[in-house]
Amino acid sequence: MRNIKLTIEYEGTNYHGWQVQKNAVTVQECIEKALSRLLGEKTGVVGCSRTDVGVHAYGQVAHFFTASAIPGEKFSYALNNLLPADIVIQKSEEEPENFHARYSSKGKRYRYLICNTAHQSALMRNRACHVRPELDFEQMRKAAEHFEGEHDFAAFQATGGQVRSTVREIYSMAVKRREDSLIELEVTGSGFLYNMVRIIAGTLIYVGMGKLAESDVPGIIRGLDRTKAGKTAPAQGLYLMEIYY
Amino acid sequence: MRNIKLTIEYEGTNYHGWQVQKNAVTVQECIEKALSRLLGEKTGVVGCSRTDVGVHAYGQVAHFFTASAIPGEKFSYALNNLLPADIVIQKSEEEPENFHARYSSKGKRYRYLICNTAHQSALMRNRACHVRPELDFEQMRKAAEHFEGEHDFAAFQATGGQVRSTVREIYSMAVKRREDSLIELEVTGSGFLYNMVRIIAGTLIYVGMGKLAESDVPGIIRGLDRTKAGKTAPAQGLYLMEIYY
Repeated sequence: MRNIKLTIEYEGTNYHGWQVQKNAVTVQECIEKALSRLLGEKTGVVGCSRTDVGVHAYGQVAHFFTASAIPGEKFSYALNNLLPADIVIQKSEEEPENFHARYSSKGKRYRYLICNTAHQSALMRNRACHVRPELDFEQMRKAAEHFEGEHDFAAFQATGGQVRSTVREIYSMAVKRREDSLIELEVTGSGFLYNMVRIIAGTLIYVGMGKLAESDVPGIIRGLDRTKAGKTAPAQGLYLMEIYY
Repeated sequence: MRNIKLTIEYEGTNYHGWQVQKNAVTVQECIEKALSRLLGEKTGVVGCSRTDVGVHAYGQVAHFFTASAIPGEKFSYALNNLLPADIVIQKSEEEPENFHARYSSKGKRYRYLICNTAHQSALMRNRACHVRPELDFEQMRKAAEHFEGEHDFAAFQATGGQVRSTVREIYSMAVKRREDSLIELEVTGSGFLYNMVRIIAGTLIYVGMGKLAESDVPGIIRGLDRTKAGKTAPAQGLYLMEIYY
């Protein structure tokens, strides 16, 4: 059997997340259906990241096994003809048999977009978190620095996560001001707990609003108490940008 | 009567452009309907720019007259409650009686986005022009410089334009490479002929593909012949960014 790696871009707006579910259309299901049509046999794909409903991806990764003779790099073209326009296979390639989309991953990069305007944005309404009060960008930037490094991120995990250890390393965490009133958080790390990026984003939004001080953040991290961190920021601002192998 | 100026953002995907038409939903019509509901009387709005089907706006401007006592800056909040989510009044303000959205304008800024990737983008599919062959960015950047200044842009006007003079001044024309394989054209000028920005974009795409040389552009401008310029680039890449008064 050959092992094929897919790099997938999707707009999450119309999907109930990545993972196959009963009674709801998911990205994984659409790709499995397209693969089954292409190959003439039921084919399951294993994704790296179980993105939630409404979360977007520029670089989700999945793999599947096949006996087909189609060259690895041709799967993207064949599958894109069978997929809806809001799911696109940006790259397909053959990998060694032991490559695993989830277990082989060494790190991930996420982006979170905040639209800080008096009115919601027509163009970014499904693609950023809208925050009306003017945010203190400088305080957010300082607060973000506290997340860098290896920490126990238990305070930044939603219930529902099932992991042995809540220690993760954040390699870098940048807060940038973009034009058009967008604030962009870009975070790269070894791995992320369930909803971790959205809780970090919600905490930084609280700092920007003055509900938390920048200097509160180290204590919130050390306290390991979910209730002390900010609210989980909404899904539509989150982008899975890239997975490192 | 009071004269109210609206600054409007919209995603053009679901509309047949700005201008009211029979048998098709337009942005102008949606705003006029919302105003009529709010004010209890039929109210027409005059827009600055007749954007085509699929074209987006961050800063379309329109004005209307009303006897209502609603403060100018409150119209945005009231109208946004009545408008679909893909049309947002970002600002409303009272202007002197002689303010006219179209005739008072002194210039405009447009953006055109090109997504230069092997596969169409899931997230940008309605928001950029997809070009598969790798574009020569440096040649496009050089070609863009030729458009700056005052020229007769007759070669860059679609049929259907009804203007006395085809002379316009482009104040600045920048070509930037953005992340995620996007190329951004940003053009500011005194005014634009019908489809002028899209024909300029199409011409720069031809230069990027090698179908035209950068050094051909001055001759194409001087020749005043529409058939010598590039194809009209698709509407979904165009954004009306700002109108100057």
